[in-house]
Amino acid sequence: MAKSKFEYVRNFEVQDTCLGNCWVVVRVDGRNFHRFQMGVTDPIQENKSSLRFAEQHNFTKPNDVRALQLMNRCAQNVMEELDAICLAFGQSDEYSFVFHKKSNWYKRRASKFMTHVVSQFASSYVFYWKEYFPDVPILYPPGFDGRVVLYPSEQNLKDYLNWRQADCHINNLYNTTFWSLVHKGGLTPVQAQIRLKGTLAAEKNEILFSDFNINYNNEPLLYRKGSVLIWQKVNEVSKKRIKLPNEADEKEVEVSRWRNEIVELHCDIIGDQFWEEHPSILSDAC
Amino acid sequence: MAKSKFEYVRNFEVQDTCLGNCWVVVRVDGRNFHRFQMGVTDPIQENKSSLRFAEQHNFTKPNDVRALQLMNRCAQNVMEELDAICLAFGQSDEYSFVFHKKSNWYKRRASKFMTHVVSQFASSYVFYWKEYFPDVPILYPPGFDGRVVLYPSEQNLKDYLNWRQADCHINNLYNTTFWSLVHKGGLTPVQAQIRLKGTLAAEKNEILFSDFNINYNNEPLLYRKGSVLIWQKVNEVSKKRIKLPNEADEKEVEVSRWRNEIVELHCDIIGDQFWEEHPSILSDAC
Amino acid sequence: MAKSKFEYVRNFEVQDTCLGNCWVVVRVDGRNFHRFQMGVTDPIQENKSSLRFAEQHNFTKPNDVRALQLMNRCAQNVMEELDAICLAFGQSDEYSFVFHKKSNWYKRRASKFMTHVVSQFASSYVFYWKEYFPDVPILYPPGFDGRVVLYPSEQNLKDYLNWRQADCHINNLYNTTFWSLVHKGGLTPVQAQIRLKGTLAAEKNEILFSDFNINYNNEPLLYRKGSVLIWQKVNEVSKKRIKLPNEADEKEVEVSRWRNEIVELHCDIIGDQFWEEHPSILSDAC
Amino acid sequence: MAKSKFEYVRNFEVQDTCLGNCWVVVRVDGRNFHRFQMGVTDPIQENKSSLRFAEQHNFTKPNDVRALQLMNRCAQNVMEELDAICLAFGQSDEYSFVFHKKSNWYKRRASKFMTHVVSQFASSYVFYWKEYFPDVPILYPPGFDGRVVLYPSEQNLKDYLNWRQADCHINNLYNTTFWSLVHKGGLTPVQAQIRLKGTLAAEKNEILFSDFNINYNNEPLLYRKGSVLIWQKVNEVSKKRIKLPNEADEKEVEVSRWRNEIVELHCDIIGDQFWEEHPSILSDAC
Repeated sequence: MAKSKFEYVRNFEVQDTCLGNCWVVVRVDGRNFHRFQMGVTDPIQENKSSLRFAEQHNFTKPNDVRALQLMNRCAQNVMEELDAICLAFGQSDEYSFVFHKKSNWYKRRASKFMTHVVSQFASSYVFYWKEYFPDVPILYPPGFDGRVVLYPSEQNLKDYLNWRQADCHINNLYNTTFWSLVHKGGLTPVQAQIRLKGTLAAEKNEILFSDFNINYNNEPLLYRKGSVLIWQKVNEVSKKRIKLPNEADEKEVEVSRWRNEIVELHCDIIGDQFWEEHPSILSDAC
Repeated sequence: MAKSKFEYVRNFEVQDTCLGNCWVVVRVDGRNFHRFQMGVTDPIQENKSSLRFAEQHNFTKPNDVRALQLMNRCAQNVMEELDAICLAFGQSDEYSFVFHKKSNWYKRRASKFMTHVVSQFASSYVFYWKEYFPDVPILYPPGFDGRVVLYPSEQNLKDYLNWRQADCHINNLYNTTFWSLVHKGGLTPVQAQIRLKGTLAAEKNEILFSDFNINYNNEPLLYRKGSVLIWQKVNEVSKKRIKLPNEADEKEVEVSRWRNEIVELHCDIIGDQFWEEHPSILSDAC
Repeated sequence: MAKSKFEYVRNFEVQDTCLGNCWVVVRVDGRNFHRFQMGVTDPIQENKSSLRFAEQHNFTKPNDVRALQLMNRCAQNVMEELDAICLAFGQSDEYSFVFHKKSNWYKRRASKFMTHVVSQFASSYVFYWKEYFPDVPILYPPGFDGRVVLYPSEQNLKDYLNWRQADCHINNLYNTTFWSLVHKGGLTPVQAQIRLKGTLAAEKNEILFSDFNINYNNEPLLYRKGSVLIWQKVNEVSKKRIKLPNEADEKEVEVSRWRNEIVELHCDIIGDQFWEEHPSILSDAC
Repeated sequence: MAKSKFEYVRNFEVQDTCLGNCWVVVRVDGRNFHRFQMGVTDPIQENKSSLRFAEQHNFTKPNDVRALQLMNRCAQNVMEELDAICLAFGQSDEYSFVFHKKSNWYKRRASKFMTHVVSQFASSYVFYWKEYFPDVPILYPPGFDGRVVLYPSEQNLKDYLNWRQADCHINNLYNTTFWSLVHKGGLTPVQAQIRLKGTLAAEKNEILFSDFNINYNNEPLLYRKGSVLIWQKVNEVSKKRIKLPNEADEKEVEVSRWRNEIVELHCDIIGDQFWEEHPSILSDAC
């Protein structure tokens, strides 16, 4: 039979099992989205290159709230569709998904983690697009990039998330200042870039405050802190009419049920407070 | 600065370079699409389980030409967007993409190959859906599964493709007979399954011919052979008006240009003929 | 120059970096030594096959104290020659070496960990042979097998060591009983094997006690618990003659110095006591 | 039972299967032997560092024929003990072993290939030492380093071997000239190093010829080409006395038998001639 003759090729597949008892992080990045917001320090250079997804769809700079909400919607879909994701953190055009260290989903095969997350994210992006951009047709199917990284200890995992949130802050402060200089200060992008070269965080805060009367700390948390998605037990109370055997009439009762629900937060995850307030995220129960 | 303190977490990323001088195959499978067509020999069992994407969108059985054409459209988009894909082969809800053994795309990182292909395929699937299913709204974003496999020799690669085409044939013959027994023969799925249990290819051909007057060899090649996408040089002739320096008037000329174009074939790839007719597919030129 | 033309072949080497912050365990096993002592439950079967290293060199059964001490000597040499080994545990013809989770020895390349340990162990085995077997010439160079395993948490690491010590106990109890039945009870190996089939630990203890007046708990700890090698700070006091500037004569003084030294223990590592008594083994100081 | 409770730790072992249909090369290097001969261009620097194995055992410079023959003896033992090694190539303190691409030895696990080769080599080194250095006691057990590299095509494999033989030539020419300048030319090592800095092969040949009357091409092939070990079928004819049934007396007959034997060659492997003369080395028969 033809089948068996060729089937030896299956033996070339390699096992790519993720080491046990480690936190599995899958990060998704928009491919050619708008490198600009991702911490690239030379927006000029970037702008010169071929048009990007963000520009072609007229994303607002430095932050497009619709694009960020669409990212959050996609991440929520990923969490609902795939098992064992404890937490997701998103900022700009990237999203990180944390699978519990005890998860044995698809026998912990790295390729499964990566491709299921990234494909679900990508199809969601097109699927939910029109809810967030009702007036902007999506011009072509976007691509995403994914990777999987293992973190052996809880501290390593937290530091990974801290790293992404710190990155969010750094880029957002830069971009907010840069585009203020351009949009409100009348500088060309080149001039804005020169103005900001080598400036520290305090100096950028000062520019925003003195020149544009912007208190950076009042900027939306969505922009400054990114988004965290976690599961939360919520009590759902619904009314129901029932008829008890020994009673004549139907009667309305309240039915209370615990349900797991995804909540979206915009808060500090750097520091202890977040973890103290949500002790169940990393517990085995997940 | 906070950034540097956390950045050590980058060191946990591992290099997943694909061995050089090997053919890189990325296979994409629909997740929970319709396992039925994929060679599962117990459709009954499958039907009992939760509703699948194919059923929820009323795909025609055993083959839905719209779904197959949509898969081909997505694969074409993947080939156009990503570099160095020499050939793609699709059947049912799966598609295989062959990257040239000399390709150094993204330094041959396995995660890049996998996630770029699978995300581009997934976003294309939703993006192009309405062109193929104008009257059927897509109900939710579908997921896909991807893997990467390396083949050191040309024969190994060809045998991989042969394996997938043989799989296409085996499943399609089974499914065509099964659904003929159900749709035209009036059998229940359970009865059809019992009828086919242990039958050889020749017996299924005979059932189709005797009971339903179907000559399996006349079934569409798309169903029996799957789809092959390859690059082909085409000569494009266009008319252009030019004015030569030493002439008074503009003049229409024909401009001939060679262009690479993706062509879709439905033919045998098992055997030598296909490779002899398309010698450039596996040549270094790709 | 010829060199550069061929040097591309270096690119085929792959990075095999061990994930950071994980304990690295390298286990060495004697190749074709005496599978018998390793928990194989069918010594008869084993005896039938080709002669083994242990038999060809007349190792005493069930334990050869010389062979065990030679293994310990080799392990000590490995610890002295290679960096960052916190602990080694040996039993029968196997030895496990624990590299600290923070170790960055040879950039944590798995192949370096494995081959340096196994080659040092193998050359030591021949080198030190005559010290332990002065009257038995070594007949041929023995082979060893090695592997590397990562453990993310301290508990995983301890459980690994517990697993090996439990294995030591199980095999030693079986072997002690088996060879008592053969050597003292006059049974053939086949009869002894049948006698022990399916017996629990308590039953084997009972056989030893009733039939051979052996209290298993009085058997040497070396056999029952295996060997643990750890580093220990020892205070070394030596006498030295010095002449102080303002004194006429030389004078003998005591010089005290702390030195790291390998100590060999035969004790329980299962349980908390061992780790409480040696808190520094797993601490970062290593 | 204690065993089962801890046995979960086995799941942390990862599969390290070598890709099928690829040539598997294991290279062994002496650890801290005498980096000098290995192409390090700064012998001065090396000499300053701690004493090396080669120096501590008074190896002759630039080549010690005893040390090279010992290496060859060890490699021969490795080939005899382990399965499926087609060819071995050695030079200086390194040896490469080629496992056939079709070999399924130990399910092609990389750790098995590496550790079995390196441990067998290391124990052989001490075991056979006294045959080659009868008057020099070995001072301590030497360590070796090993790695495994895969080569998908025959050309890649040949280029790997070419690379090592080219390396042999380059280092030997340098070292021969360097030590001639020192031993016969009366230069200090520093002076010799300065003299050779930046010289091409032709210039070194010229120095050897003009200053020391050495025709480099007459230097021993062992030094210039390294050593190749391959299997060769040899016909062994032995005399035997037999008594045939229908004959009265015993009668002496010649019995001819084909036997596989390892032969050691010192010849060019760069170029086609070697492979044409030994077509069976890379054939499946191996």
